[in-house]
Amino acid sequence: MENITVEQIEKVGSLLTYREDIKVLDCTIRDGGLMNNFHFDDEFVKAIYHALVEAGVDYMEFGYKSSKKLFSQGEYGKWKFCEEEDIRAIVGDNNTKLKISVMLDVGRVDMDSILDKKDSVIDMIRVACYIHQIPTAVDIIRQLKDKGYETSLNIMAISHASERELREALEMLGKTRVDVIYLVDSFGAYYTEEIRALTRTYLDIAKKYNKILGVHCHNNQQLAFANTIESLTLGVSYLDCTISSLGRGAGNCPTELLLGFLKNPKYKLRSIYTIMQQEIKSLKEKGLEWGYAPPYQITGMLNRHPKDAMEKIGKDEWYRFSDFYDDMLDGD
Amino acid sequence: MENITVEQIEKVGSLLTYREDIKVLDCTIRDGGLMNNFHFDDEFVKAIYHALVEAGVDYMEFGYKSSKKLFSQGEYGKWKFCEEEDIRAIVGDNNTKLKISVMLDVGRVDMDSILDKKDSVIDMIRVACYIHQIPTAVDIIRQLKDKGYETSLNIMAISHASERELREALEMLGKTRVDVIYLVDSFGAYYTEEIRALTRTYLDIAKKYNKILGVHCHNNQQLAFANTIESLTLGVSYLDCTISSLGRGAGNCPTELLLGFLKNPKYKLRSIYTIMQQEIKSLKEKGLEWGYAPPYQITGMLNRHPKDAMEKIGKDEWYRFSDFYDDMLDGD
Repeated sequence: MENITVEQIEKVGSLLTYREDIKVLDCTIRDGGLMNNFHFDDEFVKAIYHALVEAGVDYMEFGYKSSKKLFSQGEYGKWKFCEEEDIRAIVGDNNTKLKISVMLDVGRVDMDSILDKKDSVIDMIRVACYIHQIPTAVDIIRQLKDKGYETSLNIMAISHASERELREALEMLGKTRVDVIYLVDSFGAYYTEEIRALTRTYLDIAKKYNKILGVHCHNNQQLAFANTIESLTLGVSYLDCTISSLGRGAGNCPTELLLGFLKNPKYKLRSIYTIMQQEIKSLKEKGLEWGYAPPYQITGMLNRHPKDAMEKIGKDEWYRFSDFYDDMLDGD
Repeated sequence: MENITVEQIEKVGSLLTYREDIKVLDCTIRDGGLMNNFHFDDEFVKAIYHALVEAGVDYMEFGYKSSKKLFSQGEYGKWKFCEEEDIRAIVGDNNTKLKISVMLDVGRVDMDSILDKKDSVIDMIRVACYIHQIPTAVDIIRQLKDKGYETSLNIMAISHASERELREALEMLGKTRVDVIYLVDSFGAYYTEEIRALTRTYLDIAKKYNKILGVHCHNNQQLAFANTIESLTLGVSYLDCTISSLGRGAGNCPTELLLGFLKNPKYKLRSIYTIMQQEIKSLKEKGLEWGYAPPYQITGMLNRHPKDAMEKIGKDEWYRFSDFYDDMLDGD
């Protein structure tokens, strides 16, 4: 990463204005589904949908488009696959201002299962990949644009990539028809200074190729909200969040904090609090665990995948924080 | 607040260096005591003390020096009063590198109860006041310096003060013998942009009068750590934190995150994790509640004292987030 100072960065907007380019994308079901294999019941998903519509949120992400050849429908709930009829069972024809997105993982999707946009209630398809999968992702973006979708490309785990690789990947993406390029902090490893530097790297490409930028953070070091609004302040437009941080491991930028920060009067918080005191509280009471905790703080601080921490959920070992710290320091 | 941009701010140090001026002040017992009226038993306080010594933390704050004429010893535990013999029962003569601090609230202290430094194991006395109490605070600082203590002045609730008042107060403090002036976000109300602007206001005074700066944040909007390291990056030296955020309401900058960020090899995390998996876990299991939660997020976002949220702890109303939001929007 190029070493830049805060003085070199231009600020977009102020604390008392709002920008029309800002879009809030709530991915509670998609990122939260990573904690329960997508076993949310329809009532829960409907409640989230209606709350987000009422809150003026711009996008709701329902889950993944995963291949049924690769993943068992017994093991995973329906939001791992996001069939058209399952989404329509929640939203009908979605005659609201809320757009619908789904995500696909490069290498785990059956492209034939994706309808043309004119036949689908889905508005945006987000492509997630590791940096070495960019060439395949570029091909998928082409197919999705041909089908008529809004698209984004989310490069994961960039904190394990080199700056040269990242710049090369971004250049390749700049030349595609992708609409939004996402800066993703998969491991919750980045400090705000680093997010500023990365945002500038992404902004260089966005300006050169006329792309929109997005940001998706994890909360391992309680920086998901701070880093999201810092990226926003510097010019990022698409902001990912999850209600009450419900997402993988430590979770994400909390929707309630993000909407509280944004000044556009179309965003309204009340329905989010209602969801938190009902559906989210109920999920916690049923035993689903997520959010900031020492094991995730340790993996984030050490720039490691949270899986080593997630494996210990519900076991006595979960609470052996100092042993876990020792284990993680021992390396891969 | 003067409107400044990030470009105007100078950065001190880098992510891979460390500064000798940095001091970590853990106030777990003092700020956490606000959640249980300071009823920590000696074993708990001893465990925290030994963990902080092992972690290389610079200061441990034991509690308040409050007047026994004003506060009942039945209602409050011993750390509300911090008698010399009670601290010595934990630390002996404190033959360690860890310094000991206590806080006093202007208007709630009996100055006659404060020994000369030569007779006390306390190193630093921190004076907390509201902005209108500054003249009294200045007099107390004079007495404390005459007695031989390191001192700090922590102006509380500055988010309810005007910029003119704040500058005037800081000018008055600059002319005293106080060692450290603290930037305090009492309500967890400040966004990082605002903390940057405030830090610059405090830095102007610090440079003019050769004072050290400190920062004390609350975590209502999950920004306590982010704002602490942002202030640090701009030149603040004394950094307040509490283990697992144990402090009033949403708590503070977590000690575990702060030590994980700092690069000075004298700081070691292991003993902090041990405390978290034993003493802190046990405190939670016994029913003490603190930390980020929707009611505190609401008071922080609205720049309000957390007391309206704290009153609802343990009651059904605690979970009526949307009603609480409506109530808070109705104003004072």
